[in-house]
This record gives sequence, C-alpha cells and structure tokens, in this order.
Amino acid sequence: MSEKRLITPRKLSGFMELEPAKQILFDKMVEKIKNVYSQSAFMPLDTPVLEYSEILLAKSGGSIDKEVYAFKKGDNDICMRYDLTVPLARYVAMNVGSMSFPFKRYQIGKVFRGEKAQKGRFREFVQCDADIVGLDELPIVADAECLSIVDKVFKALGLKILNHISNRNILFGYCEALGEGEKTSDILVVLDKINKIGKENAVKELLEMGVSSENSQKLIEITLKCGKFDDILSEIENLSDNPTFQKGVGELKEISSYLKALGVDENCYVLDLGIIRGQNYYTGTVFEAMMPEHPEFLTVCGGGRYDNLAGYFTDKKLPGVGLSIGLTRLFDLMDSAGMLEEVKPTNIDLQIIPMGDTLNECLSLKSYFGGTIVCDINYENRSFKSKMKEANKKQIPFILIVGENEVTSKLYSLKNMITGEQYTLSKEDCLKMVEGKR
Amino acid sequence: MSEKRLITPRKLSGFMELEPAKQILFDKMVEKIKNVYSQSAFMPLDTPVLEYSEILLAKSGGSIDKEVYAFKKGDNDICMRYDLTVPLARYVAMNVGSMSFPFKRYQIGKVFRGEKAQKGRFREFVQCDADIVGLDELPIVADAECLSIVDKVFKALGLKILNHISNRNILFGYCEALGEGEKTSDILVVLDKINKIGKENAVKELLEMGVSSENSQKLIEITLKCGKFDDILSEIENLSDNPTFQKGVGELKEISSYLKALGVDENCYVLDLGIIRGQNYYTGTVFEAMMPEHPEFLTVCGGGRYDNLAGYFTDKKLPGVGLSIGLTRLFDLMDSAGMLEEVKPTNIDLQIIPMGDTLNECLSLKSYFGGTIVCDINYENRSFKSKMKEANKKQIPFILIVGENEVTSKLYSLKNMITGEQYTLSKEDCLKMVEGKR
Repeated sequence: MSEKRLITPRKLSGFMELEPAKQILFDKMVEKIKNVYSQSAFMPLDTPVLEYSEILLAKSGGSIDKEVYAFKKGDNDICMRYDLTVPLARYVAMNVGSMSFPFKRYQIGKVFRGEKAQKGRFREFVQCDADIVGLDELPIVADAECLSIVDKVFKALGLKILNHISNRNILFGYCEALGEGEKTSDILVVLDKINKIGKENAVKELLEMGVSSENSQKLIEITLKCGKFDDILSEIENLSDNPTFQKGVGELKEISSYLKALGVDENCYVLDLGIIRGQNYYTGTVFEAMMPEHPEFLTVCGGGRYDNLAGYFTDKKLPGVGLSIGLTRLFDLMDSAGMLEEVKPTNIDLQIIPMGDTLNECLSLKSYFGGTIVCDINYENRSFKSKMKEANKKQIPFILIVGENEVTSKLYSLKNMITGEQYTLSKEDCLKMVEGKR
Repeated sequence: MSEKRLITPRKLSGFMELEPAKQILFDKMVEKIKNVYSQSAFMPLDTPVLEYSEILLAKSGGSIDKEVYAFKKGDNDICMRYDLTVPLARYVAMNVGSMSFPFKRYQIGKVFRGEKAQKGRFREFVQCDADIVGLDELPIVADAECLSIVDKVFKALGLKILNHISNRNILFGYCEALGEGEKTSDILVVLDKINKIGKENAVKELLEMGVSSENSQKLIEITLKCGKFDDILSEIENLSDNPTFQKGVGELKEISSYLKALGVDENCYVLDLGIIRGQNYYTGTVFEAMMPEHPEFLTVCGGGRYDNLAGYFTDKKLPGVGLSIGLTRLFDLMDSAGMLEEVKPTNIDLQIIPMGDTLNECLSLKSYFGGTIVCDINYENRSFKSKMKEANKKQIPFILIVGENEVTSKLYSLKNMITGEQYTLSKEDCLKMVEGKR
C-alpha cells in the first residue's frame, strides 16, 4: 500500500469535459462551422486567452466585473478573455494601419466567465464568432451577409432555426416620435422582457416610469409585431416619419431584398420587433436565432451591427456586424435532448488481434492498412475471448485474427462484427472490404 | 475630437498572435497533426484550461512554481494548465472505472507558462500531445507505436527529422553496475548536459561528486554512443549483466524490431544514449526528434514512457507512453527560417465587383458560386480603379465585373488577375474556369 496521501482527482464545476467519443461529435460541429466561415471568405484570427486588464475592462473603466477571471502576474494586471469581441477590437485598433477593410475574421475559441455555475451555464465555453469590420463605413449588405451565414451554419449543422431579425432604430425612433425619447434606454429594458414578465406587467412598468398610457400601448403593440418582412414592414412603415425610425425601416427593406437575392430560405427568418438584445453597443440590425422545435434552447446564435468597434482604443471609426454561436451550451442542450449523432465508442475501423508470436506480422499489416483506414492492434496480454468481448463493447466493425498459420499463408481471418460473417482473405481484399463498409 | 481618453491597444508580450493569412498556415499544421493522431486510432480529449491548484501542483506538493498562472476565484485556488499531461492524469484517475484500456487520447490545446519572455519562448503555446495509457501494464509495442506516429506526423508536415531514441534503464543500470547507483540522479544531470558543457567539464563534475576516474570515462563514453540501433546495441549489450541495464537493452531490441515491422524509415531514427530528458517521470523509452537541416531548432518533438501516470491521484497503476509537439515554437522557428508555405493574403477565389445598381445580381451570383468556391463581393463605396488595385494587392486570382448590361445579358466579364486575360462568360462557365484554376 502506498504511504503517500492521494489527492482526490476532481474538476472545477461549470467546466465541460466530454468523453472522447462525444468530443469527436463536438469537434465535427466546430469543423462544420469553421468550413462555413472560411467558405464565406472569413479568415481565422487567434487572439491570446490572456489580455491586459486595462484592455478587457476598458468598457467598465477598469472595474472588475465579478464574472471576469482577473489576476496579477508580476507587475501586470491580467484577465482571461470573456468574449472574442474585445480582443477583436484590440487587434483591429493595433493593426488598423496595415490591414485591408472590410476585415472579415472568424474566431473559434474558449472564453471564460466565472459566473455562478448552474445547469446550462458554463464558466469555460467555446464561442464561434464571425465579424465584418469596415473602416469609416460598412454598407448594410454586410448585415445581410452575416444573416445568410447564420442560415448556412445551421443548415451545415443539420439544425432547423428561425432567425428573429430586427433593427434597433425602429424602437429608438418610435420612442422619439412618441415624445418619450429621453426614456428610451429604460423603455427598451422593459420591452426586452415582455415575454418574461407578460404584457400587463410591462404596461405597469412603463406607466411607473412616466410613459403615457396611450404610448405604453403603442410601444407594446409594435414590439409584439413578428412575421414576414414584407408584411410587418407594410404595417409599420407609415407609423412615423421620424428619421431614425425611417432609417430602420429603410435598412430592413434593404436587408429583405438582399436576403432574397442571396437565396436565404424565407421560412428561416422573420422580422421580430421584439428582438432588442441587451448589449448597448448594437446600433442597427440585431438578431437572435432560435429553434422552433426546441424553444427551450432560447437563443442559439445572436448578433448585430455596431457603429464603432474599438472606440476605447482608437479614434478611427470602425463599424461592424457579426454573429456569435455559444457552441458549448448548444452542444450540451442537444446532448440532453438526445439530438446528437450516434456516439460511437471508437473511431477504429479494423482491430487486429495477434494469436501467438505474430506481433511483427500484425505491425506490418497495421502499417499497410493505416494509411487508408483506422487500424489498431489489440496487443494486450489478455485472453482471445475477452478481447472479442471488448471489441464488441467498443462496436469495432471488423476484427482481423492473425495466428501463426496466417503469417505463413498470408491469408487472414476477417470477421464482420455486425453480421458475424467471417472471411479468409489476402490483406488487399481485407482492406477493400473494410474500406467499402466505412 | 473625442473627449474620451483612449487606451493604447496592446498585447501581453510572449503571446503569439498571427495575422490571419499566417493563422491559416498554422491551422493547416494543426489539422495535419490531428489527422495523423486520429488516423492512428487516438481519440480527442479536451480538458479545461483551468484546474484546481491542488491538482496541477500535486507534484510540487502544492507550492506554486513561478511559471504557473495561479489565482484565487471565490473560495477556489485555481491554476491555468501548464501542460496537458497532468490534466490527462486527473481525467484518467477520475474516470478509470468506466474507461477501456489501453486509452489512446490526443489533445491539441493551449498551455500557459508565465516564464520570462524571450525570443522563441512563449507564455501561451499550442501543445499537440498523444498518449497511450494502460491499466496495470502496457507492452513495449506501445512505445514503438508512439515512435511511428512521430515519423508520420513530421512526414505529414513535410519536415525531415531524425528521432533520437534511448531508454533510461541503460544508464540507470550502468550506474548501478559501476557501483555508482546511489549517485544516479546527479550523474544523469551531468550527462544530460555533455553537449552544452563539453566532455572535459562533464568529467570534472563527475569527479567532484566522487565518481571514480575510470567510471567517469566509461559513463561519458556510453552516453556519447549514437547510431543505428543494431550497431549500438551490439556494442553495448555485453557491457553489463545488470538486470536494469539488460531490461533497457531488451526493450530497445524490441523497439528496433517493431519499428522495422511498422516500416518506419530507418534514416529517420537513431539510438542515442545521450538522450536523457530532464523530467524524472520518464522510466524507460525516451526520445527527442530534431531536424538535421536545422539543428538550431533543437528538440521539435519529445516524449517517452512513464511507469505511473496518476500516482498522485489514484492507487491504480497506469503506465503510459506519449509524445508532445510544441507547435507554437516550431511554427515560429519555421517562420523565421523562411520555411512556411507561401503566405496568401486572402482565401478568396473570386471577387465580384458591382458596377452601378447591380448589388442584388451580385448577391445571387455569390449565392450560386459560394457552395463551390470562396466568393466575395467588394461592396465598398470606392472607385473601380481602387478596387482593382486592392484585389491585386490581396492576390485575388479572379475578378468578376457585374455592370447593368451584364444583368440583362447574363454574360459576365471574368478577369484572370494573374495572366490579365479577360473573358465574357455565363455564370456556369465562370465557375468552371475559377474552379479549374484553384
């Protein structure tokens, strides 16, 4: 017995750690997202996990949000990134002179938030972001491009979504038009939670902050509008001639026309004026994609347009538009809902079982098969029976049995573990058969 | 002018951040390594970046090495991982009951070491590890498997290496055989640095620690042996009948035979008894791959056999063998040496330039091309001339000009930016031409 005190192996809570068979599925999703981004002419960026606190906390004037992992190392105040947007802003501000615009980058990486761990909330999660950043200006067609990528990504993932799109200028302008312009931010906070608190409570809150009864009704009515772009736009376009409101209408019309030209499936998006998105930095287009068959997943992808990406770091005006998918959360939800592809306990196509002193022959065979299929040797010191049992448990599709006779005859016993059929074949024919059944 | 004080955008030193065009090349290398690991029947594991300090610092009894990024969050003492081996040990110890062995996992991820920043040293770097872990026992053929993966990985990367292989039992046993067994660790420290300090200084240090003159000579002589396995083994196998020494000889003979059976190129590895590797946890096979054409790169891949992976966390015996590639450092060295593939400023195959009011037509075309090639629209509000200049600078191979006539005729002007040739083609023929030249 060991004299040494053992340390109980444990993992921090709120950190996803998948068994390898599931990690393969996760990695496949990453690959699909990456392919769509890259195929859409976005280039990869990989910023460090750690940044100066001064940079990451610029927004809050340096004060540390309790969610952020912050610490001191030597003389430096350091934070772990909590999103991929601030690092993008820092990167663009640092390199603006040598870059070409619009800058289309994607980044797929882990971000860290030390929030209270609870079901479906992770402290470390993979975020998949794609953004288009312009210098001085960026036309609205860029917004449509991002929206079409949302469509493509979820098609590639085989997931049916409905993307709820809006434009914050609509509510900004409408508040102004109603003479409630000064209360806009407070009003938006209330309108953003109508679904949570209900229409009546929303009215009550609006009245409490001094919005007139008539205006409260009107604000709630417009916020609840959701449907086909053309329908909703024709309902609202004459509601007000406020310039901000009309800017929103105009941008939504443009987007509607671009999405049609891009061939985005019209069943996969709606104009939903209730989409507000809390973050203050969105200034025009906003969107949240949901899964109609799984409303409990809430938003699986969100994003929008911001007027100025890096205002804390540079005087250059850098408007942008982007989308973000929280993949760790999505994967977890899909797993709980039984929506993942079948989990295969192994990626092995063919396992060789040596019988007697045939290991070198098995290694040559592995070397022969290995370039084409995933081949493994069970070289453990265990009985044949237990090896077959193990292969079955692992769902390995083919087993090759290599005994001393086989070394001489160069004909090997190949067993199809699914059908139970057994063949005596040359290595070339073994390879053909296994390859054919992949 | 902005009233707000700007924060100078800056990045922590010692953290690699590639421009996107180079990041593509880095990602390609990751992809190639991943493919070899996965094709060799290793499964992916992705442990968290953060772990309990108690776990990561188990080896040092909880004392924080100055290299480690450690901090407190709430009540928890937390560290950022500084390698992928301790997290693997923690994972296996936690899940040993439900796993099947040998467990073959790869992990490609960032690790963090807050060391003094200097050229070629990174505080955040991508490590690419593959390990085979057994329960109770793991035959030596697993070591050969790892060595053949080293060969395959560097072939996949197009890099010529020479893998220097040894077995620590040789020197362990030889020290014992010479009656210097008690001084073994100190002796190994000296022998490990012969190349750095020179033969004479090594002798001096050995004499100072009380090793006899004759033994010092013998130890240095054996340590300098390097060459073909069969040659070196026949030179040394009768040097001593010490059981540890003979265990080393036996294992090396086995490995030699397995590597031949696996078809590993004999010009790509040597038996080099000077390979010791500082880390105490290696107990048998050790190896360091170097690049003969770039000796200044030093070790580009290393690894070896350890008797017990997770002794701090479990009483179960978990022998293993693995390899590790420090990709960030390797990439940086290759970049400095001009060894990277050509850096292409963009991944765009075809850029559409709208002339006049043709944006919707351009979007339809983009949607048509986009499934097959990487297509982008230059929708910026700039002159045609400046757009062409930009396309040239970005080395975009093809430009499609879409004016109002083209919208009517459905025939478009395609320009090959390399040859300067210009064609008038249908969209189908445009796609064929661009696809053919990818």
